[in-house]
Amino acid sequence: MHELHTNVRASNVVRARRLLQKKFRDSEGAFLVEGPQAVREAARYAHVREVFVTAETAQRYPEIISAVQERRGLVCFASDEVVAHLTSAVTPQGIVAVTEMPNHKVSSALHSESRLVVTLAYVRDPGNAGSVMRVADAVGADGVLATTESVDLHNSKVVRASAGSLFHVPCVEEVDLAEVIERARSFGLQVFAADGSGETLSDAMDLARPTMWVFGNEAWGIPDEILSLVDRVVALPIYGKAESLNLATAAAVCLYASAQAQRAN
Amino acid sequence: MHELHTNVRASNVVRARRLLQKKFRDSEGAFLVEGPQAVREAARYAHVREVFVTAETAQRYPEIISAVQERRGLVCFASDEVVAHLTSAVTPQGIVAVTEMPNHKVSSALHSESRLVVTLAYVRDPGNAGSVMRVADAVGADGVLATTESVDLHNSKVVRASAGSLFHVPCVEEVDLAEVIERARSFGLQVFAADGSGETLSDAMDLARPTMWVFGNEAWGIPDEILSLVDRVVALPIYGKAESLNLATAAAVCLYASAQAQRAN
Repeated sequence: MHELHTNVRASNVVRARRLLQKKFRDSEGAFLVEGPQAVREAARYAHVREVFVTAETAQRYPEIISAVQERRGLVCFASDEVVAHLTSAVTPQGIVAVTEMPNHKVSSALHSESRLVVTLAYVRDPGNAGSVMRVADAVGADGVLATTESVDLHNSKVVRASAGSLFHVPCVEEVDLAEVIERARSFGLQVFAADGSGETLSDAMDLARPTMWVFGNEAWGIPDEILSLVDRVVALPIYGKAESLNLATAAAVCLYASAQAQRAN
Repeated sequence: MHELHTNVRASNVVRARRLLQKKFRDSEGAFLVEGPQAVREAARYAHVREVFVTAETAQRYPEIISAVQERRGLVCFASDEVVAHLTSAVTPQGIVAVTEMPNHKVSSALHSESRLVVTLAYVRDPGNAGSVMRVADAVGADGVLATTESVDLHNSKVVRASAGSLFHVPCVEEVDLAEVIERARSFGLQVFAADGSGETLSDAMDLARPTMWVFGNEAWGIPDEILSLVDRVVALPIYGKAESLNLATAAAVCLYASAQAQRAN
């Protein structure tokens, strides 16, 4: 029988919990991943240093535990209380992994072969950021970039909303928006910004070309000085009385439009 | 100068706060609407019985206050604490309205002229439900139906995520799924269910025909016995490694595909 960690003040629990804060994520080069689905992807695509898991969850997902151990990650059996202490979720799912940050650079996402790149500019809501990462993964995007002013992509709420997609697509934080727009252009990508002030999305826009999409802040969109840098400002058609769409749903429609046009070619 | 409500135990505050619970919403026929944008829509499209507003917010949005008063709604100036007490939001926006429930029936949404109807089956997450209502509004859908097992559409988190769309589109709760599928067919609508197990969405599906879309539970989709009742089970193409999409983002892609095909005709 394994030792059961029940003390939230144990030193490894205290160290892990600190990773809920960005400054410790940066200094440790690690972040927390919660729930069986996301931990499975972490164990497969990244390096899990240590996993805190309840006996019940370990029994239910033995393959996750083996995958962590095979790559020399520590497995700590822990009480519900310890696991709950390490998550920001309302209903913890019995497993939390201390995972090494994948060390992606802008060039992992944005290069001469890139066809579809997503940039989050001033996006503050973690649920939105995570959902957009999940859509980016679904459409097979080359990467997700987030500007300095955006929510941290390794924030546990973002990680949770991304449902594992953080491990499937190169995600890079703290990029400079003007610089990546310039870089995208140098690789032959057109740059579209989604904003309610733009022209209505249509097939006439040559969506099949390699494209970087810029999605802006939930409340106030994208500043004019940024809009002036992109090739096109694009709005979704609104047929009803809604003023706008939620950021993640708008991004889904834009990204699927590009991905489908690119694949039809 | 108006009287300022500062006591969270005042009888009107206590009564209003009860509306955070479904049983009181049902018995009072009223629900809470938070934030300037949503209250503006409530005052315009429904009946606001009473509004709790901070002096600062009232000063910033005088047109909302006038709109409530013109239709004989009470205006109560309240402290930040009272307003916070009436919301489930982390950052209350200074205004909460006790609003009469619009009395929509299934026939308001689903009738012989309906072209695009949205049904939420077993949808539990309030953010998802509200975001789908917002998308339904954006695409000009005829209505949103929610089954008995789904989250209550007048739950304050749903109302907040819908960003006013609850007042733009007839929304009806506690419908029986098999019955509305039958009814949709009798009005000549095809019924599509979105589910990862289905055929890939494509133009060959005659999306231009009047359609009712059924969206299912976030975690386990739609039960087989329901899938067997619909005309088509439709999946979005996944080009990357994501297992699935978030419910609201998937719904956005499906509903825009239908709306655009219908309007191209």
